[in-house]
Amino acid sequence: MKRFYVKDLPRALNQKVLVKGWIHKIHDLGRIAFVTLRDKSGLVQLVLEESQKEGLRLEMALEVTGVVSENQKAASGLEIKVEKLKVVGAAHYDKLPFPINKEENVHLETQLNHRTISLRNPKIRAPFTIQEEIVTAFRDYLKHHHFSEIHTPKIISSGTEGGSEMFTVKYFDTRAFLAQSPQFYKQMMVGAGFERVFEIGHAYRAELHNTWRHLNEYVSLDIEMGFIEDENDIMDMEEGLLIHVLEHLRKACEKELEILEVDLPVIEKIPRIELETAREILLESFEKKSPPGNLDAEGEVLFSQYVKEKYNSDFVFLTRYPVSKRPVYTMPVEEEPELTRSFDLLFRGLEITTGGQRIHDYQQLKENMETFDLNPEDFDFYLDTFRYGMPPHGGLAIGLERLTMKLCQLENIREATLLPRDMKRITP
Amino acid sequence: MKRFYVKDLPRALNQKVLVKGWIHKIHDLGRIAFVTLRDKSGLVQLVLEESQKEGLRLEMALEVTGVVSENQKAASGLEIKVEKLKVVGAAHYDKLPFPINKEENVHLETQLNHRTISLRNPKIRAPFTIQEEIVTAFRDYLKHHHFSEIHTPKIISSGTEGGSEMFTVKYFDTRAFLAQSPQFYKQMMVGAGFERVFEIGHAYRAELHNTWRHLNEYVSLDIEMGFIEDENDIMDMEEGLLIHVLEHLRKACEKELEILEVDLPVIEKIPRIELETAREILLESFEKKSPPGNLDAEGEVLFSQYVKEKYNSDFVFLTRYPVSKRPVYTMPVEEEPELTRSFDLLFRGLEITTGGQRIHDYQQLKENMETFDLNPEDFDFYLDTFRYGMPPHGGLAIGLERLTMKLCQLENIREATLLPRDMKRITP
Repeated sequence: MKRFYVKDLPRALNQKVLVKGWIHKIHDLGRIAFVTLRDKSGLVQLVLEESQKEGLRLEMALEVTGVVSENQKAASGLEIKVEKLKVVGAAHYDKLPFPINKEENVHLETQLNHRTISLRNPKIRAPFTIQEEIVTAFRDYLKHHHFSEIHTPKIISSGTEGGSEMFTVKYFDTRAFLAQSPQFYKQMMVGAGFERVFEIGHAYRAELHNTWRHLNEYVSLDIEMGFIEDENDIMDMEEGLLIHVLEHLRKACEKELEILEVDLPVIEKIPRIELETAREILLESFEKKSPPGNLDAEGEVLFSQYVKEKYNSDFVFLTRYPVSKRPVYTMPVEEEPELTRSFDLLFRGLEITTGGQRIHDYQQLKENMETFDLNPEDFDFYLDTFRYGMPPHGGLAIGLERLTMKLCQLENIREATLLPRDMKRITP
Repeated sequence: MKRFYVKDLPRALNQKVLVKGWIHKIHDLGRIAFVTLRDKSGLVQLVLEESQKEGLRLEMALEVTGVVSENQKAASGLEIKVEKLKVVGAAHYDKLPFPINKEENVHLETQLNHRTISLRNPKIRAPFTIQEEIVTAFRDYLKHHHFSEIHTPKIISSGTEGGSEMFTVKYFDTRAFLAQSPQFYKQMMVGAGFERVFEIGHAYRAELHNTWRHLNEYVSLDIEMGFIEDENDIMDMEEGLLIHVLEHLRKACEKELEILEVDLPVIEKIPRIELETAREILLESFEKKSPPGNLDAEGEVLFSQYVKEKYNSDFVFLTRYPVSKRPVYTMPVEEEPELTRSFDLLFRGLEITTGGQRIHDYQQLKENMETFDLNPEDFDFYLDTFRYGMPPHGGLAIGLERLTMKLCQLENIREATLLPRDMKRITP
């Protein structure tokens, strides 16, 4: 007998079906019991006779056959009169660590310590369905725009951003690092003839930050594209991409958005504002001072509020970061060589993207390394790429968990991470 | 002006177009020159006048506008009479490390040392287009079958397979490891209510092997599914998946299969043969002795040949591996407790998958850990999953590079890896 998912049951009215899932609730009326079965797709009410309910406990895994009938009193409007019931996953607990079938505020640390259990709660799991669909939409959009998906090594021999804040790995007889980003490799693959690439992979930051918005291992949505005019091509691509992602989520995640009670933002045009202008606005309109060549976390929040009011946009590109705040490969602005063709994207007060145009000329890159006090010989494998006709190119990276967190209006990035890694946590 | 990819040029006959790419060949006739332009999608002939060809060198990156016309003598039947030509990526080399436009056998080490250049050769890049489409088909098939895509940590606190052969990471003040597989986590996510999950991610093996078929960092295509009957459900899923992948590749990679001159295998039904039977056949028909409870590399090749002749299949499932050769979580066969409900899949003489049913009962798993001389307390975070109704489940992992290598009939797994990591190589 073919298994039915709960969401498909309306198609099986008055039919006998096989369903599988976990016991979400038990409502025992003595001669009869109502059991709510929860599967991947939803909840349905089972009707059990006295003899069938014996020994059942919350969260046991069941396989059930029975006939689907209408019942307007049941939450989904349907119920299954149980004919056969088999416990396929037993309960081995005295007491559940916390209720799974209630919307109770369970402390985040407790949730994370019992990840298998906490994720069974539909509201706690909902952000991950949304996260999966973000990835789907990201990939579909890029493939449609001639990007190739690549997989590049996370074990590397030297840092891409100068070498600080990296985890070290004992690699046989030598020392290696975990990649902070696929930066060098995605550029190399543009040059290798893929022209446009993306990667969905882990990135590692050994940062000594234990905050609501930092993870030490996260999923980076990386893009790099060749044959561009300048950094505006990259911002155009991200704008189109985000519009597509939001459209897709509205269709694919209607149920999850409802569970989370959130509205998705609407993008028409994302304002592009020079960092220096943003700093001036913050100072003049909010008496908010910013650190040199940057905004701080508070400044990001304030400026996002300003943009929301003035442009009705939840997103804003900050452009033209100074050379001093950007990595060695960042393209300077020819007319203003202390500024770069780079940008950040803020979304509801949080930076979710860094991107920009890269230097593509061999000589310029080599000289820039020297200016940055780096030894070009240490980067031979990377520099070599630039000897053989490297086209103008640029790219960006989106932090998947940050984007998910902000779209779902979660308070902590760990709520958008199945199994987070932070300074204090490497289990489960 | 909108850019045309070379493969779309037949739609632009007699139109003026913009194309971008690299100089693949230069055929200089004095008053006129033919330049072959190579982009991501193919090759096209450019026709240049004497004044336009000055300074051009192989592999420079160009942006070209011109009119498309038919020319039966050109390789693609088309050529572009160049009106404007702009060098956007300069050449900074004395001599190319090896020819890119010829089918010359370049030593693999040289190819890997100059990865950006070697991948520009269409024949060297072709396996990666196939690899990308394998991943696409894998994902599409599983999503269609109600699987969720997950991302699980690669920094872990303890080993899944007993702890040997893992890379160690200095993680702040503690020691962590790089995950050999997402085994524990994918099982946990089945239990967390996702029911069916897959992950496309890196796996790390600190094995002291430097062979044609080993990588120390590879991409693992991982599957785990709940509510199964037994390991045959997992083999059914893999069989259907591989049939789908091959069908997809036939359509999506026609050009690459032609470049590589390979035929894809056809799957009707993959034979399922008990390991012990395979060992007996090897001994009786080939006088080939096998190590206890396993086949060796030579045995895998011989047995694959036997299956090809007898069943006309390029694939064979070897089933019922002994308990002694499988990890602690492997489900034993109730009637023959020294055997397990696990399997390997051989493809053209090489193991590309290990899979099977897992133990889902808390008590049984805990006792099995003790039998395996493991301390259950070390695996608390994993064992906890099994207390709350863990359904029968199982899964498998496919090595992406191994599958790609065998489908493309490559001789070394590094030819199916953009940037391989082995005992001797962590650059580029």
